[in-house]
Amino acid sequence: MKTYIGVDLGGTNVRVAKISEDGTVLEQLKSPSYAQEGREKVMENLIGLIHQIPDWQSCAGIGVGVPGPCNQETGSMSMSTNLPGFTGFPFVDTLQKEFGIPAFIDNDANVAGLAEALLGAGKGLPVVYYVTLSTGIGGGLVVNGMTVSGKHGYAGEIAGIVVRRESPKYNHLAPGAVENEASGTAVTRKANERIPDMHFEHAGQVFELAEAGNETARQIVAEVVQDLGQLFATLSDVLDPDMFVIGGGMMKSADKFMPQVIEEFNKLVQEPMRDVVFAKAELEEPGIIGAAMLPYSHGC
Amino acid sequence: MKTYIGVDLGGTNVRVAKISEDGTVLEQLKSPSYAQEGREKVMENLIGLIHQIPDWQSCAGIGVGVPGPCNQETGSMSMSTNLPGFTGFPFVDTLQKEFGIPAFIDNDANVAGLAEALLGAGKGLPVVYYVTLSTGIGGGLVVNGMTVSGKHGYAGEIAGIVVRRESPKYNHLAPGAVENEASGTAVTRKANERIPDMHFEHAGQVFELAEAGNETARQIVAEVVQDLGQLFATLSDVLDPDMFVIGGGMMKSADKFMPQVIEEFNKLVQEPMRDVVFAKAELEEPGIIGAAMLPYSHGC
Repeated sequence: MKTYIGVDLGGTNVRVAKISEDGTVLEQLKSPSYAQEGREKVMENLIGLIHQIPDWQSCAGIGVGVPGPCNQETGSMSMSTNLPGFTGFPFVDTLQKEFGIPAFIDNDANVAGLAEALLGAGKGLPVVYYVTLSTGIGGGLVVNGMTVSGKHGYAGEIAGIVVRRESPKYNHLAPGAVENEASGTAVTRKANERIPDMHFEHAGQVFELAEAGNETARQIVAEVVQDLGQLFATLSDVLDPDMFVIGGGMMKSADKFMPQVIEEFNKLVQEPMRDVVFAKAELEEPGIIGAAMLPYSHGC
Repeated sequence: MKTYIGVDLGGTNVRVAKISEDGTVLEQLKSPSYAQEGREKVMENLIGLIHQIPDWQSCAGIGVGVPGPCNQETGSMSMSTNLPGFTGFPFVDTLQKEFGIPAFIDNDANVAGLAEALLGAGKGLPVVYYVTLSTGIGGGLVVNGMTVSGKHGYAGEIAGIVVRRESPKYNHLAPGAVENEASGTAVTRKANERIPDMHFEHAGQVFELAEAGNETARQIVAEVVQDLGQLFATLSDVLDPDMFVIGGGMMKSADKFMPQVIEEFNKLVQEPMRDVVFAKAELEEPGIIGAAMLPYSHGC
């Protein structure tokens, strides 16, 4: 059975693993990513970790998941906020020169989607759309076992999809962008704004308060339901996927909003599309497994 | 050079052609489709036309474009309004049994997108999104030279994407669906509603009146610009295509709204995505050429 090196590079930590093509983690190393010490330190550390993997030479390729969009033509990040100095850096070339095996890079949401499409909830399905509902909202499209990254690697940057046009502009995203309306951060922000006598740390508290009957919290959840219903309907209109695989921290409260989101979705799409499967992400480690599956998905 | 049979089957007419892999139309036959006389008559006529193509036996495959979503697994239409009796009919099997060569079927917008991606404006680009702005609004996604049809063939059924949630419900689509807000039909409807002392036959008249300075017409065009800008931004957020190829009758007035649509698009998407190319459809016969390219795109 073939094996691959998977790298999950974040702003805080980096993990490097040797993973077999069925998704079994054979070796794993973890360390701080040293993002704030600059790119050279990050790369030196990462390369050192791969060298420590026993028999890395037998691996058929290296795949790296990074926190930002990637340009597949240049093998580099298109934009990097959590990893200073990585925008445009020839990441793939650097790894290929160092290790002499094929290397690939992709955005962490695409990579997680790839893992779920190949080995998790969406195993074997032709069109799988992965959505992460977390502090932010992200997506990843996998068609016939390959991620679709788009021209600049922005495919799946669904955070910016406008669902509530009349809303104010909060940041670089368009007014009414779904991330500013229905992410965990947005739910928490709305609750702190509208229920000033309480303090909310995360969206789960708002979902609980709504369930307990608080009218303002219920209204916030109703908005989230409307906005996420519209987001999923839009994705179905564009892609008609076999399955949505949904991950991210908000899914800890899934029972408190997902049934209503699916009801809203069903109102907005044409009848045949209503049998799309809404599945919870299954894999415990989609980030690192999906990274290792990048070279696999490219035929290595 | 390989040749293929392309079939463009509509509610009114059917065309059958022998087309080489570079898109040259070598033979072409046209007849009424006899849609109202029922499926058996339609198929008998269509099969007869293919038999009339000289040396059809040397063709590497048959591709059919039809006016509605198709299920690729069953090789049939998922929904057929203009061709009564075709929902679920085993179209592909029937042709394969009759002619003994591989056959494929796809929605006409997907097929037109395939033609533009392989041989027209989007030639050679990895991710091409075709949009038709006509009496309706449709789309077709082509990734690496293959159409993406989705689970039920509804991928690209972008007519239903909600852009103006507060609007009334007009038909089977969701309230505020882009087709009911920004298609040629919608523009004409809005003008006839809001400028009751005039009568409008098509959207081009509304665009002209706006250019002549009529305030109500300008407001209608401003709404179209906002809605189409948001539609294209949404598509870029999901797919980050290399190019939008835009066809359909509204494009006769392209100079009167597309520059503003692109300006609106640029406001809504993140900076790197702003260099996506908005191209006019180039091919005169994308329907029949794209149909012939279906077997080509599947490796026949």
